[in-house]
Parts: sequence; C-alpha cells; structure tokens
Amino acid sequence: MECYWGFLGLLVPALLVGFLSVILTLVWVLHYREGLGWDGSGLEFNWHPVLIVTGFVFIQGIAIIVYRLPWTWKCSKLLMKCIHAGLNTVAATLVTVSLVAVFDYHNAGSIPNMYSLHSWVGLTTVILYFLQLLFGFLVFLLPWAPPHLRAVIMPIHVYSGLLLFGMVIATCLMGVTEKLFFVLNNPSYSSFPPEGVFANALGLLIVLFGALILWIATRPQWKRPKEPDSTLLQPHGGKTEGMEGTVSMSFVNNLDRSDSDSNSEAAARKRNLGLEESGQRSTM
Amino acid sequence: MECYWGFLGLLVPALLVGFLSVILTLVWVLHYREGLGWDGSGLEFNWHPVLIVTGFVFIQGIAIIVYRLPWTWKCSKLLMKCIHAGLNTVAATLVTVSLVAVFDYHNAGSIPNMYSLHSWVGLTTVILYFLQLLFGFLVFLLPWAPPHLRAVIMPIHVYSGLLLFGMVIATCLMGVTEKLFFVLNNPSYSSFPPEGVFANALGLLIVLFGALILWIATRPQWKRPKEPDSTLLQPHGGKTEGMEGTVSMSFVNNLDRSDSDSNSEAAARKRNLGLEESGQRSTM
Repeated sequence: MECYWGFLGLLVPALLVGFLSVILTLVWVLHYREGLGWDGSGLEFNWHPVLIVTGFVFIQGIAIIVYRLPWTWKCSKLLMKCIHAGLNTVAATLVTVSLVAVFDYHNAGSIPNMYSLHSWVGLTTVILYFLQLLFGFLVFLLPWAPPHLRAVIMPIHVYSGLLLFGMVIATCLMGVTEKLFFVLNNPSYSSFPPEGVFANALGLLIVLFGALILWIATRPQWKRPKEPDSTLLQPHGGKTEGMEGTVSMSFVNNLDRSDSDSNSEAAARKRNLGLEESGQRSTM
Repeated sequence: MECYWGFLGLLVPALLVGFLSVILTLVWVLHYREGLGWDGSGLEFNWHPVLIVTGFVFIQGIAIIVYRLPWTWKCSKLLMKCIHAGLNTVAATLVTVSLVAVFDYHNAGSIPNMYSLHSWVGLTTVILYFLQLLFGFLVFLLPWAPPHLRAVIMPIHVYSGLLLFGMVIATCLMGVTEKLFFVLNNPSYSSFPPEGVFANALGLLIVLFGALILWIATRPQWKRPKEPDSTLLQPHGGKTEGMEGTVSMSFVNNLDRSDSDSNSEAAARKRNLGLEESGQRSTM
C-alpha cells in the first residue's frame, strides 16, 4: 500500500494541475473571448486552444504515465498498451479537429496559414506525433514485430514521446503569446489587463503540468516491472537469479545519476516488488 | 576507438546545429535588425537574443553533455565537475548581461517590464537555474556533502537540469514569436517576409539542438562509468563482482523501456569498458 500512497502524492497534484489547465482554457475562451461555435469566426478558432490543451496536453500527459500507475501492474501488458494507444488516439483525434478549426477560421477570414513559428513547430510536432502513433501501433501493439526490433525501437519511442510532449507544451506557450499580442490592444497586453495575467498564469500551469508528468515518467521506482519472460533478454544473455534480481538490475540508472545510486529508490522499488511476488500479474 | 566514433556521430551534428544557431542569431540582429550597441536603444536589446542563444542554449547544452564525452572518462571526476560548473557559470553570466540589456532597453524607452508570458516563464527559468547552480556547487562541488545526500539530490539535479534546458528553449521560441510580431509590420509577418522565414528557421534549429542534446544526455551507453569506490553504494548494499558488473547493472534501464532491454546498448557499453580496463581513470 505504501507505494500506492507515494505515487498518489505525485499523481493527484499532476491530475489537478492538468485538469485545472483545461478548465482555465475553457474559462479563457468562454469568459474573455466570445465563446465557442463552428461558423468560421473567432468562436470556431476558440476550439483550437480548448482541444489542444484537453487532448495534446492533458490526455497525452495521462497516456505517457499510464504504465506507471502501480495498481495497473497487475493488468496484462496488452491491456495497458491498448489504453496507452487509445488515449493517444483520442488525443490525436482532438488535435485533428483543433487543426480543422484553426484552418477553417483562417480560410474564412482570408488569414494566411502557416507563417508563424508557432505553426511551424506545431505542425512539425503533429506530424511527428502521428508517425509516433503509427510506428507504436505497428511495432508494439501488433504482435508481429520480433522482440529484438522492439528492444531497439523502445528507447527511441520513449524519447520521442517525451520530446514531443515537451514540444507540445512549447507550442502552447507560443500560441498563448501570439493570441495575447493579437487580441490585447485596448487595454494593451503591456498594461497588465486581467486577461493577460490570466492567460500567463495558464501558461505557467501548463509548464507545471508538463514538469510533473516528466518527473513521474522518468522516476525509476514507478517503472512498470518487467514481465517474467523478459529474463530472456538480459544484457549479457545470461539468466538472472529470480525476478527480484531482474528488476533490481533494471532500475538503477535513470538519466545521468553519475555520482552514485539512490538507495531510497532501491528501497522503493523493492517495496513495489510485493506486487509481483503475489503472482497476480499476467503477461501479454 | 569504435565508441569514440559512435559518439562523434552524435556530438558533431549537435555542435554544428548549436553553433549555427548562434551564428544565425548574430545574422538576425546584424543583418535584419540594426546591429549591436549599448545605448538603451534596440541595439542594446539585440544583445538579449545573442547572449541567450550563446549562453543559455549553446553553452548550457555543452555543459549538460560534458560528462558524456568518452575521452573525458579518463579525467578525474573533480575536473569534470569543475568544467560542468564552469560552463554553467559562463552561461549564467551571459544570461545576467542579457537581462540587464533587455531591462535597460525597456526602462530607456518606458516599455513596461515583465508583462508577457515570455518574461514570466523566462524569469522563472533564470531564477531556478541560479538555484540549480548554487545547490550544485554546495552539494556536488564542495567536498562536505555526505554521499547519501548526493545520492538523494542527484536525480533531482539531473531532472531539473534537463527540464530547465527545455524551458530555456521554450522561452526562446516565445521570444522569437514576440519579436517577430513586434517588428514585422510592413511587410507583415503573415506575408512571409525573409526575416520571418529566417527567424522561424532559427527557432526550428534551436529545437533540433535541444533534441540532440537531450538524446545524448539520456542515452545509457554514453553515461560516464561509475567510480570504482561507488560499489559501496550498490542498491542492496552488497559488493559487486567487479567493475564490469557494476557498470552493467547501472546502464540497463533508461526512462521507460518497458518491453525489454536493448542488447545493442549492452554491447556498446561493454565496448566502452575498455577505457576502464586500461586502468587510466583517476578518481576524485
């Protein structure tokens, strides 16, 4: 139980900050901008921030950490992959609708498309995200990819996922910046109007959500334990002395802890092993 | 030698992209903006992007990966810590001057300070960066912190460093966005003027530099091998069977490789061990 509470101490703030970001984006467009619609006007444009923050930030953030929820470690890997892919597919759908909204709005008002850095980085991110989704589906969800290929692709898949999540947040910050300079003229953005302060705070909240998700996603003690049959893929090709040995070998290094290892993380990880020892986990 | 060439294949493109970003920033201010000066005018402001991209992006990027250069693994850890801290101090100095330039420019022209999201995220990043530098100095460079404290702080230090680097890049992108909307009026940014396209390309180049640095910084095979005395800090408190055992335990897991481990990374890491076997490395 201890590991559940420790994880909840991170998860609950992350979900609260993410959910609050979605709510504040809705407040922004409903209270400060003229609301939502689908008529080629600014009302249609307003779907763009709402759907991006909901799908590309909040839902993608949850999709990234879904393997790390300790109470899902009992579930089959296939089920978790389906949830991970499903959440990312929902995010991709919302992103697609949000892009239709903004292109519709531009075209209806004869506003040029794709001239700003926000649009360049944003479209690059969307294209790479769809490629990531496609390759993830082909390599990890369909059963045909050999284990060696999965082993080679997995670090790239994980790195790309976190990088794209960071790029989404950077693109959001550019989008907020652009929008505030467009619309805040009287009073101007530089006179600290309520909408400017409000949207700046929203931007900081999105950064905080990203920081929490990236922290959870890179802590070794919350990494889903390996499946028992993964002992076949030990680095030296040898067998380990048991499941605990396998997992303790795999958690030590994360990112660049170059001075020494964290005994507290080792202890946390050992506690989590109780789940495996119960023998309730199923494999794909 | 093989590991050197493999690393160079990543390092050279990263340095080229970073150096090109600095050059393009100089071209932007010298060719498209009116150049550099220190008179409270736009010429003084122009030091801001030049010093930020040089110090906060390029030099900080090198500081992040300096431990990972294989040919430095023979050097003492203390020397490498001094280089890491020294580069970050140079970056912090350039950032300070760049902030003086922008506040001077604002104050001389009676332009309000700190109203935009760029400034909010940017100042937050700078403050956290200085705190990171201070805590890094106190905990890792001065000899008084006990190993246990270093072990606890190290994952936070590494995570914060990479997160702050990402925040710097996001802030740069917002800065480019702001500047282009300010200055491109006739012809407007939306008519794809050369300066707009040029600065957008610079923004993408900065993103690419960040992506390369983060890739290098998170690959387990380029992690500096542990010092021999770090066997005292093995997760289960036990001794390992030798240096190779220590390192092979420490490289397996990076981020969230949840399907299986990469045998190719294991092989790469084993090749790198040749350096240690030569017995040339010194410890702090």
